[in-house]
Amino acid sequence: MDGLSEKIYLEISSPTEEDARSDQKRILDGLREAGYPASLTLSVMRRLYPLCRQAEWKLTLSLAWDGTGWQAVDVEPGDTRDRHYGLAVDLGSTTVVTRLIHCGTGACLGEVSRYNGQIPWGTDILTRIFACKDNPEVLEQVRQATVDTICANLAELEAQTGVAGSQCIQMTVAGNATMIHFLLGIDAFCVFSTPYAVHVDQPGFLPGEQLGFPIRGYVFCFPCRSNYLGGDIVSGMLAVGFYRREGICAFFDIGTNGELVVGNRDFLLCGAGAAGPALEGGSVKTGMRAVAGAVDRVFWQDGDLQVHVLGDPAAKEEAEPGNPAAKGICGSGIVDLLAVLFLHGWIDLKGRLHPEKSPRIQRRGDSWAVEYAPGLFFDQADIEEFVKTKAAAYTMVEYVLRESGISLEELEAFYVAGAFGKHVDKEAAVSIGLYPDLPRDRLRSAGNASLEGAERLLCNRSLLADLDAILERMIYIQFGAVEDFLHMMVAAQAFPHTDIERFPTVKARLEEIRKKEEAGEL
Amino acid sequence: MDGLSEKIYLEISSPTEEDARSDQKRILDGLREAGYPASLTLSVMRRLYPLCRQAEWKLTLSLAWDGTGWQAVDVEPGDTRDRHYGLAVDLGSTTVVTRLIHCGTGACLGEVSRYNGQIPWGTDILTRIFACKDNPEVLEQVRQATVDTICANLAELEAQTGVAGSQCIQMTVAGNATMIHFLLGIDAFCVFSTPYAVHVDQPGFLPGEQLGFPIRGYVFCFPCRSNYLGGDIVSGMLAVGFYRREGICAFFDIGTNGELVVGNRDFLLCGAGAAGPALEGGSVKTGMRAVAGAVDRVFWQDGDLQVHVLGDPAAKEEAEPGNPAAKGICGSGIVDLLAVLFLHGWIDLKGRLHPEKSPRIQRRGDSWAVEYAPGLFFDQADIEEFVKTKAAAYTMVEYVLRESGISLEELEAFYVAGAFGKHVDKEAAVSIGLYPDLPRDRLRSAGNASLEGAERLLCNRSLLADLDAILERMIYIQFGAVEDFLHMMVAAQAFPHTDIERFPTVKARLEEIRKKEEAGEL
Repeated sequence: MDGLSEKIYLEISSPTEEDARSDQKRILDGLREAGYPASLTLSVMRRLYPLCRQAEWKLTLSLAWDGTGWQAVDVEPGDTRDRHYGLAVDLGSTTVVTRLIHCGTGACLGEVSRYNGQIPWGTDILTRIFACKDNPEVLEQVRQATVDTICANLAELEAQTGVAGSQCIQMTVAGNATMIHFLLGIDAFCVFSTPYAVHVDQPGFLPGEQLGFPIRGYVFCFPCRSNYLGGDIVSGMLAVGFYRREGICAFFDIGTNGELVVGNRDFLLCGAGAAGPALEGGSVKTGMRAVAGAVDRVFWQDGDLQVHVLGDPAAKEEAEPGNPAAKGICGSGIVDLLAVLFLHGWIDLKGRLHPEKSPRIQRRGDSWAVEYAPGLFFDQADIEEFVKTKAAAYTMVEYVLRESGISLEELEAFYVAGAFGKHVDKEAAVSIGLYPDLPRDRLRSAGNASLEGAERLLCNRSLLADLDAILERMIYIQFGAVEDFLHMMVAAQAFPHTDIERFPTVKARLEEIRKKEEAGEL
Repeated sequence: MDGLSEKIYLEISSPTEEDARSDQKRILDGLREAGYPASLTLSVMRRLYPLCRQAEWKLTLSLAWDGTGWQAVDVEPGDTRDRHYGLAVDLGSTTVVTRLIHCGTGACLGEVSRYNGQIPWGTDILTRIFACKDNPEVLEQVRQATVDTICANLAELEAQTGVAGSQCIQMTVAGNATMIHFLLGIDAFCVFSTPYAVHVDQPGFLPGEQLGFPIRGYVFCFPCRSNYLGGDIVSGMLAVGFYRREGICAFFDIGTNGELVVGNRDFLLCGAGAAGPALEGGSVKTGMRAVAGAVDRVFWQDGDLQVHVLGDPAAKEEAEPGNPAAKGICGSGIVDLLAVLFLHGWIDLKGRLHPEKSPRIQRRGDSWAVEYAPGLFFDQADIEEFVKTKAAAYTMVEYVLRESGISLEELEAFYVAGAFGKHVDKEAAVSIGLYPDLPRDRLRSAGNASLEGAERLLCNRSLLADLDAILERMIYIQFGAVEDFLHMMVAAQAFPHTDIERFPTVKARLEEIRKKEEAGEL
């Protein structure tokens, strides 16, 4: 592993009158001979005596890369190379995930996550930004809450593995521009306000101590390309890796905002835009996060829709379908639900509910609604909200492809990042026109690409050069500035699209279902 | 000035949607265009908003060289290049001198000095070392006292000039190996114990904050060549500058220890050894420091010796000779006294007092003593102590010259550093054989060369490369290891030397005085 840290074991000769080099020089000479020209930090200088003599000059130096060179940030007696740790952090606005990595082997020793401690200042990121805007005291509270969240993850990792944060050398953090501003204690209003010039986009390597972490070395925050294309996306690029390949791929991170990168080793065309909280269940009346009680799967069985409800994850057991009682519906459930409703004709191409199709479709106030679980309704307005959102997401893909002159067929892979990519059923997502109609093996979940990229960089410092190349290659299209975009989005506000020919497999499937329905097979 | 810091004024365009570069990038691009690729520290990142906008993007960046690159350590609104400050420190074991420098012009804005706050742990350096040895608590107290001494100098400079330490960017510190160990909080017993390998010899640039100073950037501690050849001597090399020249020169720093460097741009031969406190009046019974009440000059007048006594320096007036009452004698006074005694035959070549020469020579206990001021005596034992000390100092010079195959005549200049060089009368010093018998214009005071070198480096970073060259060129002779040395030293234990032919001008002067005496002219 040639990561952002190294542990180097040295056996050094003791000083004599003939060789009276300083302790410092003996160590630096040893490191240089091992191929690591370095400097000693003050804290290491202070520990040389009596440690070197007690250890009989058998020492392990912890080296941290600071962006331009190696700093020896710790010295330990004996050979401790097998205890070489680092941390990778996905600093999400909702969830903060931290992995403890053995940087000698690359093994993941533990992964923990918890809600971002910023949430008390707003569940959505904009509320937090306004809370901090021109208010240094609140900003400092939010900064501290961010640091505390990561430190709580470190404490949990220590409880699980026995490895403390203070035994870790480096930390990599991937997060969007707002999250990184908050982590550094910088006002983030710039991210969402014209002219969208952020304050800091390349924090680089900052001493862990300065940021409030117990690690020995530095925190590397991934650079952001622009206000809406944050370090999480740049880190995701490292994870999916198509910026090195010839084949053209797409990387799509859908959440409250959507970010898209299309390209290969020659170009990276990017877009970002508000996707809307509907995708995460946010603006749907019975929407909720993917926690216990959420309908996360909807499927068709025996001529009716059936649901799966998430159990208590702490119970570590799969809940039975319909049991425990559903409390709402999360993103993957909504996509499934709309796919089932559409494929079976309960809603039409425009998303209108057809009450004659099922007694589940009932009048609620002045609109129709489908009772997807006992007492839980998804109504016409929810559908309209969602169709707008998925149209926005789809149009990003369509627009960027068109701008780059790439046809869908040319895409070797379409990576979908995050929990959405992991949990949403790709067949359902294509059926409603959220994902493009690509061969299904090309539709791939990128997992937590942000975290994955952070881990890769931690273990491979040559990727620092890749980051520079990625940032340079990324061309950012501001969708807000594109006149066409609105027209394309309106055309996409249908299931799967006003032009069904763009979704040939959906068209075929619809025809197949119609045939089966007519034959009374469903 | 191309010093260790720069202040760069930038007028930057405001962000627009067309040019939405981050604040950070705008500044870094501006600095790069000005020829200063740099990084921003976290504290500067945090201050960008709202400062950049309030200053309408007219900013001054303070850049600190960290050994490998520039760090922007401060950002101020408007053009503040005329307020560009740095600090140079001579960290002596007795006195700590600090200069406030305007790094834009090189002007010295103020100089203050005070006793080293380590003195409560021992007036001599060895006592302090033993107090700290294997005692981290005392070591920490001594470290803090060292920092406090410099900070007290900063406070005094602020009172004088209005410029606070926090307005200074960089600080250079020249001190011997022990002083630097104490400043960094490192046990210094290594300096005086075999095998004389120090813990740290090249501290380099350390963040001021980590050391406890209010400055914005870094503290550069001069490297030491070996345990007895400290950063004060290396700094002194920068001041006298003969390491760049063809002509061969000598640099001699005499105090409790003596350090000598002989060489030119091709070689630097060095020696260091205990000179003994006698030179500073330390082991002489009525010896004292050069403060109010000290006899600092002795001269011959009207057939008798006369003295000058230092007045209260706070009174800023020259005291009248003999007034105020003398309390003792300091180094320059002793050299004068012995020269007068010798030249006028009150002592002979061996240093023996001749009571027949003056009623001032009186029996004190079982030895003769000369009453150099009312009630103050310099006795035979004092003379013997001093002659040993001056013989040690002279022998260093003689030995190093012999080893390097250089004759005295080849020396273009013989620099004497420090207060000794400044205050000792060179004619007197030659007369007693402390200085070699060179043409007097070649005997030069180097002033506070340690402080001078620290100031030069602060204002000229190209001298960093010179330091490397100086360290590499310096060849260190351990006198303790040299058998010859003792024999040579014994031969030098006379006034001016057992071989008076080495001091032709002294011989001539003696003959002249004898003639005048015989003619009754004195």
